[in-house]
Amino acid sequence: MPSPTIRRLDVASPVPADIDIANAVEPLPIADIAAELGLRPDHYDLYGKYKAKVLLSVLDDLKAQQDGYYVVVGGITPTPLGEGKSTTTVGLCQALGAFLDKKVVTCLRQPSQGPTFGIKGGAAGGGYSQVIPMDEFNLHLTGDIHAITAANNLLAAAIDTRIFHENSQSDKGLFNRLCPANKEGKRHFADVMFRRLTKLGISKTDPNELTPDEIRRFARLDIDPESITWRRVMDVNDRFLRKITIGQGPEEKGMVRETGFDISVASEIMAVLALTTSLADMRERLGRMVIGNSKSGEPITADDLGVGGALTVLMKDAIHPTLMQTLEGTPVLVHAGPFANIAHGNSSIVADKIALKLVGKGGFVVTEAGFGADIGTEKFMDIKCRYSGLVPQCAIIVATIRALKMHGGGPEVVAGKPLDHAYVSENVALVEAGCVNLAKHISNTRSYGVNVVVAINKFASDTEAEMNVVRSASMAAGAFDAVVCTHHAHGGKGAVELGLAVQRACESQTEPLKFLYPLESSIKEKIESIAKFYGASGVEYSEQAEKQIEMYTKQGFSNLPICMAKTQYSFSHVPSMKGAPTGFVLPIRDVRASIGAGFIYPLVGTMSTMPGLPTRPCFYEIDVDTATGKVMGLS
Amino acid sequence: MPSPTIRRLDVASPVPADIDIANAVEPLPIADIAAELGLRPDHYDLYGKYKAKVLLSVLDDLKAQQDGYYVVVGGITPTPLGEGKSTTTVGLCQALGAFLDKKVVTCLRQPSQGPTFGIKGGAAGGGYSQVIPMDEFNLHLTGDIHAITAANNLLAAAIDTRIFHENSQSDKGLFNRLCPANKEGKRHFADVMFRRLTKLGISKTDPNELTPDEIRRFARLDIDPESITWRRVMDVNDRFLRKITIGQGPEEKGMVRETGFDISVASEIMAVLALTTSLADMRERLGRMVIGNSKSGEPITADDLGVGGALTVLMKDAIHPTLMQTLEGTPVLVHAGPFANIAHGNSSIVADKIALKLVGKGGFVVTEAGFGADIGTEKFMDIKCRYSGLVPQCAIIVATIRALKMHGGGPEVVAGKPLDHAYVSENVALVEAGCVNLAKHISNTRSYGVNVVVAINKFASDTEAEMNVVRSASMAAGAFDAVVCTHHAHGGKGAVELGLAVQRACESQTEPLKFLYPLESSIKEKIESIAKFYGASGVEYSEQAEKQIEMYTKQGFSNLPICMAKTQYSFSHVPSMKGAPTGFVLPIRDVRASIGAGFIYPLVGTMSTMPGLPTRPCFYEIDVDTATGKVMGLS
Repeated sequence: MPSPTIRRLDVASPVPADIDIANAVEPLPIADIAAELGLRPDHYDLYGKYKAKVLLSVLDDLKAQQDGYYVVVGGITPTPLGEGKSTTTVGLCQALGAFLDKKVVTCLRQPSQGPTFGIKGGAAGGGYSQVIPMDEFNLHLTGDIHAITAANNLLAAAIDTRIFHENSQSDKGLFNRLCPANKEGKRHFADVMFRRLTKLGISKTDPNELTPDEIRRFARLDIDPESITWRRVMDVNDRFLRKITIGQGPEEKGMVRETGFDISVASEIMAVLALTTSLADMRERLGRMVIGNSKSGEPITADDLGVGGALTVLMKDAIHPTLMQTLEGTPVLVHAGPFANIAHGNSSIVADKIALKLVGKGGFVVTEAGFGADIGTEKFMDIKCRYSGLVPQCAIIVATIRALKMHGGGPEVVAGKPLDHAYVSENVALVEAGCVNLAKHISNTRSYGVNVVVAINKFASDTEAEMNVVRSASMAAGAFDAVVCTHHAHGGKGAVELGLAVQRACESQTEPLKFLYPLESSIKEKIESIAKFYGASGVEYSEQAEKQIEMYTKQGFSNLPICMAKTQYSFSHVPSMKGAPTGFVLPIRDVRASIGAGFIYPLVGTMSTMPGLPTRPCFYEIDVDTATGKVMGLS
Repeated sequence: MPSPTIRRLDVASPVPADIDIANAVEPLPIADIAAELGLRPDHYDLYGKYKAKVLLSVLDDLKAQQDGYYVVVGGITPTPLGEGKSTTTVGLCQALGAFLDKKVVTCLRQPSQGPTFGIKGGAAGGGYSQVIPMDEFNLHLTGDIHAITAANNLLAAAIDTRIFHENSQSDKGLFNRLCPANKEGKRHFADVMFRRLTKLGISKTDPNELTPDEIRRFARLDIDPESITWRRVMDVNDRFLRKITIGQGPEEKGMVRETGFDISVASEIMAVLALTTSLADMRERLGRMVIGNSKSGEPITADDLGVGGALTVLMKDAIHPTLMQTLEGTPVLVHAGPFANIAHGNSSIVADKIALKLVGKGGFVVTEAGFGADIGTEKFMDIKCRYSGLVPQCAIIVATIRALKMHGGGPEVVAGKPLDHAYVSENVALVEAGCVNLAKHISNTRSYGVNVVVAINKFASDTEAEMNVVRSASMAAGAFDAVVCTHHAHGGKGAVELGLAVQRACESQTEPLKFLYPLESSIKEKIESIAKFYGASGVEYSEQAEKQIEMYTKQGFSNLPICMAKTQYSFSHVPSMKGAPTGFVLPIRDVRASIGAGFIYPLVGTMSTMPGLPTRPCFYEIDVDTATGKVMGLS
């Protein structure tokens, strides 16, 4: 029997605009969706009528519950138009929940608000497979990204202010200010200071007992301004902040420094949120984030600056995932949205864990991994599953005829320009040639020991002959199944076959999860494993990369997993190398680290971490109908 | 009969730390507080268990309801330690609601989050007169300030990007990008563009019909970078952002510019939120905010940039006030917190309007005005009441023996240093001499035609003789009453006498509200009225101020009210001039405008709009107890 919160869609043809579809459906009170999932009112906090934060403590109550099936959605190497990975994730869940009577939760990333006003528009899925209310999904949601911005920038302010105060004070003056005497003349250490004392090997608990040398080591962080990797963030597409000079006010006494802003989702704190497993774990991760080095080369952390606790306070509500719903009334958990190159591009571990308990045995949790499977699924397995201990039963690879034709040698696809004729009329040969890309993604994903289902996201102009080619190529490459789906045009009904295939794949999965590399390997060995996985014949390190690898190894961080920052438009580092290139040498330009989040990220090329606005940004169409309060013009 | 949500406090002596008092009380579900106020569940949106946004639409439902009494709380010229204005506001309401069985709503400003981690600590009141949960009050609350940050910075990004794109494109290229052809080759104007077309006197609706001259005037804003007054904001104490250079990335092609960040509550958007009266009004105010001038001297607005609608979308939830509760279970509306110098320092009009309807006839709404009465109450009357049409029945002036002693010639009071002996032992002569300051505030406030009640916020060391002096001086200066209160130590019980006095003052109020100046006066005439009100013998304008006054007058903005940006530590512009100085000449250094919010603000001296962090910020003590989730160390 379908759940009472399920809603049947009246689909129109041709498919109306996303916002019109979303606005035509009245969402259910989120409390009804929560009740249907078995959540008690004390398990969540409402944020308005259509959003609720599911409290992490629900995990304690559901400890005895068995996990459901865990499904990850990746894709082939995409065109710049995107191949409908989010839409497929939502459509599949609508099929499982609304047509196949399964308990299901969709786990999605929270989109960055900035690009909503720029070129990109929203990220709630599309057509008849969407999360609603789509304006709330795309805008403030429940404030998690705002909390990240606040925390990130508090740490940034703490860094520059500390350098400033250290520059003008003696060791003793600094120490006396850090541990001021109370009314009775007694000094004490703040709790957070014991973390630094422990790191320095000082076990004294009374500030008065420190020797002058200990006072100096404790109070003077001696941060090397050149080494600071921590940047400020803002959830706005503000290209003029990419590179700036700060500290030019007269009060800052000439202590100027070049730095810049990234968009908020690029903050390490977003990656921490996505990878943390509990409030206590988040406290530790935030405290050990490294912002740069001392002049003698020691890593300086948020806790060295005394701010790890305050960052946790700012993030304490953000740790709870947000419950929303699809157009067909199935539940969605939205949580975290780290960058898919300089970070791992996956939604949060805690949302997936809660979801797996809520659906229970025989239920399904479908989670999306950013970019193509070379990046998204790889990081899902080697970083996210490694930290969570969770094991997927099925990996989906979303493919489109359009993208396969591009990989087969079709003309360049450019966002905003009309598609070439090759993409809107039958061309079986191009599709056939392009299947090398799909096949490589299938065999790569299979190597983790997981069943692979290919979802062919059908467009109106795709032909039966073209799709048959993809099905054959998929099976030949080792896929468990390959299914055509039309959820964009038909909602869940269009993904029922996919849902059935996923169910069979999950039920027949038996192999254990095999990681690509062991953590104990050296940083270079790990990088080389991933490069080989891409098809590279070797790796080339810049001098800077060599220097960084040496430094991180010396600092004791070499046991972390690797998070490659690479283009999503090719298996290689060159966006124009389509298909499944081999024999290329992967260049590592630089190597950085997110120690709190828990990974090393080599840079393969230059990654923009702050988008800009075009001449006519989306915001020209966006307004509120002041009579109804409805948002207009979001796309 | 007291309301069922009323909670009796067990008070301890000496008074424990604020956070300990706050954490010892279990707040009621906010839905209970809402129900007691007569709100239906569709009148508000929950944000967790202890906060709810009361929807503006409630005003439609309560149209027929009579307003309650409207009470504003100001203060004498304060010491840097603050004289307990917020605490008195909360304590008075606890008295009215919990002891005098009145319907009452406290209207408070939302504090800035940044300073919570710096020197200041929280702003939820103190002792046994506080708003709870105090951590939620002081941190993200319901996201309004985050929305302001996002909207402010989207506008900032739009400005620099527009200049950038105008620099590299021809008139025609620019126009074609602003009004791109759709698939059928047709161009159209976005709705927001008609605002600019109207301003330019162009009534055409088809982009194809514009002449080349009209195209140039429409598409080229020609912003003068030197004239830009719009700065970026952040809710963090980040002094290194006070003055920065932006646009230094290679992609920005050398288009560097000096600018800076203010703390978010200094954004004009915060002042708009505080002064708006409806969603439609907010849309108009946000659209007409002026960011600078064109090279030919025309003011350029957010709507000229096409972004007024998007700003409204970002602010559409922020327009609803947040309901919270006091320690004794009386309701509080928290909404908006504009700066008290460069803006008007009062909480929102919409919160006061909703509150006045909710308490109804015979009920009380108590709202606080920032800084001393010379600034806070003046702006409350001449700006806020002018825009709202509301009329207060009673104005409270909070005084402390400590501050009066300072005005009487006592030694300097410095935050963080021990108080001089004069302040903690009886000194009637100092108090008596200091009453000139109080008397001037009383007569100033009386000049609006409103009854004045003096609240003497009693500290443990204050003596009966000292307080008697204050009472006599108050009555001699024209106060309606002067009452000693001890709400910090005793909660509402300590402010019962004050509550009774306020009730009598409201019931006997008969005069109409008299503004200090008519809007039709020139900018200079209005400035001079306020200067006289302060006690100045005249006004001196800098060359820059003269130039700005001329420009704003020419641009048609001279009918706006005036919002003086002056120190709160003296009636004059010199913080060390205590008491009630006369004969000084008030220097106007510069004149600026918040056209969307609706005021001109002359700068009397230099105002810091971005605080910094000390060597040992508050954040050293702040952490989460990861076992209970409770916040520790907030003060």
